[in-house]
Amino acid sequence: MRAEVIAIGTELLLGYVVDTNSAWIGEQLAAEGIDCLMAVKVGDNLGRIAAAIRASLERADAVICCGGLGPTQDDITREAIAEVMSVELLRDARMEHRIEEMFARWGRRMAGNNRRQADVPAGASFIHQTRGTAPGLICPIDAPPGTDPPTRERQAADGAGTARPKVIYAVPGVPGEMREMMARAVLPDLVARSGSRAVIASRTLRTWGIDESAVAEVLAPRLQVLDAAGNPAIAFLASGAEGIKVRITSKVAGAVAESSEGPYAETGRPQTSLLRAEASAILDREEAQVRALLGDRIFAVDDQTMESVVGDLLLAGGLTVAVAESLTGGLLGSRLTEVPGASRWFRGGVVAYAPEVKRDLLGLPDGPVISSEAAAAMASGVARALGADVGLAVTGVAGPEEQEGQPIGTVWVGSWIEDESSTVRLAVPGGRPEVRALTVISALDHLRRRLLGLPATR
Amino acid sequence: MRAEVIAIGTELLLGYVVDTNSAWIGEQLAAEGIDCLMAVKVGDNLGRIAAAIRASLERADAVICCGGLGPTQDDITREAIAEVMSVELLRDARMEHRIEEMFARWGRRMAGNNRRQADVPAGASFIHQTRGTAPGLICPIDAPPGTDPPTRERQAADGAGTARPKVIYAVPGVPGEMREMMARAVLPDLVARSGSRAVIASRTLRTWGIDESAVAEVLAPRLQVLDAAGNPAIAFLASGAEGIKVRITSKVAGAVAESSEGPYAETGRPQTSLLRAEASAILDREEAQVRALLGDRIFAVDDQTMESVVGDLLLAGGLTVAVAESLTGGLLGSRLTEVPGASRWFRGGVVAYAPEVKRDLLGLPDGPVISSEAAAAMASGVARALGADVGLAVTGVAGPEEQEGQPIGTVWVGSWIEDESSTVRLAVPGGRPEVRALTVISALDHLRRRLLGLPATR
Repeated sequence: MRAEVIAIGTELLLGYVVDTNSAWIGEQLAAEGIDCLMAVKVGDNLGRIAAAIRASLERADAVICCGGLGPTQDDITREAIAEVMSVELLRDARMEHRIEEMFARWGRRMAGNNRRQADVPAGASFIHQTRGTAPGLICPIDAPPGTDPPTRERQAADGAGTARPKVIYAVPGVPGEMREMMARAVLPDLVARSGSRAVIASRTLRTWGIDESAVAEVLAPRLQVLDAAGNPAIAFLASGAEGIKVRITSKVAGAVAESSEGPYAETGRPQTSLLRAEASAILDREEAQVRALLGDRIFAVDDQTMESVVGDLLLAGGLTVAVAESLTGGLLGSRLTEVPGASRWFRGGVVAYAPEVKRDLLGLPDGPVISSEAAAAMASGVARALGADVGLAVTGVAGPEEQEGQPIGTVWVGSWIEDESSTVRLAVPGGRPEVRALTVISALDHLRRRLLGLPATR
Repeated sequence: MRAEVIAIGTELLLGYVVDTNSAWIGEQLAAEGIDCLMAVKVGDNLGRIAAAIRASLERADAVICCGGLGPTQDDITREAIAEVMSVELLRDARMEHRIEEMFARWGRRMAGNNRRQADVPAGASFIHQTRGTAPGLICPIDAPPGTDPPTRERQAADGAGTARPKVIYAVPGVPGEMREMMARAVLPDLVARSGSRAVIASRTLRTWGIDESAVAEVLAPRLQVLDAAGNPAIAFLASGAEGIKVRITSKVAGAVAESSEGPYAETGRPQTSLLRAEASAILDREEAQVRALLGDRIFAVDDQTMESVVGDLLLAGGLTVAVAESLTGGLLGSRLTEVPGASRWFRGGVVAYAPEVKRDLLGLPDGPVISSEAAAAMASGVARALGADVGLAVTGVAGPEEQEGQPIGTVWVGSWIEDESSTVRLAVPGGRPEVRALTVISALDHLRRRLLGLPATR
């Protein structure tokens, strides 16, 4: 089964809005084992949208059109699909009523334009809307004229669905509406239409303190083994201030059992869970192999973040933390408090941008503020001032200018736990935003390693 | 002149990476008056990349391929272009040497793979690399076989360049390398190849404190006038915690003067500057019209940010600021210190996440911490503690749970300037990340309005 995505909207081509929808849809399709070999962006032009749909239909079994379902005159995805299907657009009275009721429920007057959202190409069906006013569409496309309707036997004889009916979906361009409709209606319908199944599962191990070429070198022997075996696969993704991500992907194929209810009655759901379990077991085994090579450089898995991991460690140890920051201006505290429930272990912080604030609020002795001594004094000072068990501090030069004769990127991280201080010096590359972002994750990793009893790095 | 963009990389289709390159390129093309009617994402597959390039060449005069120029085996953009051109790939000894020298300069060993980056399709030329190791390519495509080389006269007689030679560009997928190469080589080459010119210029006015439908209502009479005139045009873009952007776009067309040096010798640069000046004057006039309608809701223009505007106001008034924050955990200070040179007006801050920190460091009296009194006391307390002229404070409920019986999204902003306090209560919609982000920009807008002597809103 092959699908293509067409993102519709002139604003996407002009770069006013970045198309994130097709990436999200691509990820979902891969997870369902449906190949997505091409994605297209096209503007609000009837001829070009229709041409793009026709071209995609030639290459793929399914086309997902995203956007252009709004009420205004430049929302013409419905018209373009009707043209490709060579059918009329019909106004559906029940859908019209449904949209009227939505407006009434919200206490808003419905503009006449909104009635266009009740239009449906003859032979297509609606995907009911639950968030916005635009319904989606499922538009079956018969086999090309002149060919007989396909039977299951002929399909099998012909190979991979050469005469299989195809389908066009239309979903709104608003990401929330699109995602909900894809998950509820489009993906299940696609899975039901596809005769055979494969499940692709992936897991991401996040590393810090090791660069991409070193990750590649350490994993090289394992990659050789995997290249020969073919499954699972490993890929690296350098993510700047988020470290290097190592993604393990496993693909497990299977076939949906035949059923007497017609080719699309068996949704394949029960078997999918078995395939998923197998894919997950492969990921577990491979994760153990990768961990044996990368060790404590791996700080998180999948949706875990450095701050959530640090928060979990503090919570597990029954500890609270306070932060003192200069060059990051609050970014360190802000990042820790992104974690819901941070109040259980985060006391607060002091942003000491002006040198006198370091002295007055944190009790820093006179002397250079970009130094090991200053970082240690800030960490212990803020822990004492805010009544925390742990203090974490950063002081350094973010630019645009040097400071105390130190170049941009010179940063000291200090931590204070149970009356014991530890500091580390960083030479952070990049400009002001990079220095700030890298300082924050480096400081959090320093604390992570101390809380785990690991040796400091660098 | 029409161009299309092909973003190359399986990771883009799988959704591991969002393709932001084609949006950026689309914006640059529009600014140069070059139409971009379609953009495509395709994976690392020789046949499909070549097919995508051929299809784009049928529709457009120029194709910009982005990505697939790296050293590894799945980087095959060079091969695909050679296949489309029906020519051999040649290894260029001088480029090979240049890449070797880059590695030597960085003190790194060059892997053999990197020699592939010195390959060039016969008849194409390099765009020299200045950042990464991958050079770009300019690949002229002759008129289809069987047609005579076009002359200027024939082109004019045939209409818009039906027999005009076409061109394929290849640039790296790393955004920084791509942008530099586009600006330095590809866009000037495209402009030089296009016979006639139009300049599109735009200006973005940023508003806060007014929702999208209200912006539309206020501007409705002006939009009617513009719709009739056709130029300039106005579009709205709701940008969440960054407010509503009102974008004015003006398009001015002109033709490049003929020259005796051949069709591409005249780069059109001198005339372009006149067109740009005209477009800019149109923007000035329209900005005045929009400002008359939206007034002090407009806080910034183009690349200005709320924090840069507040910083400029403080600097102009010779004032320094200190911030006290609870639910935002440092985000307010972090955002202010994104502005380079913030140390001239930013003293620092206190992140008072635990209630006792509010009391101990900021001198808050006992009582509820989510209140007008608390916001005012935090603002004056932090200004005094940090020796600042101005104090700005936020206190409220970000979730995941209620606090002091107040629902999520209840926020008080307080400011203190010259012994005078002012507070405002917000009911911020959304979950934890939205409440935090909207709180920060609302607090900054509150301070902006006070510094400008404007009445408080809400």
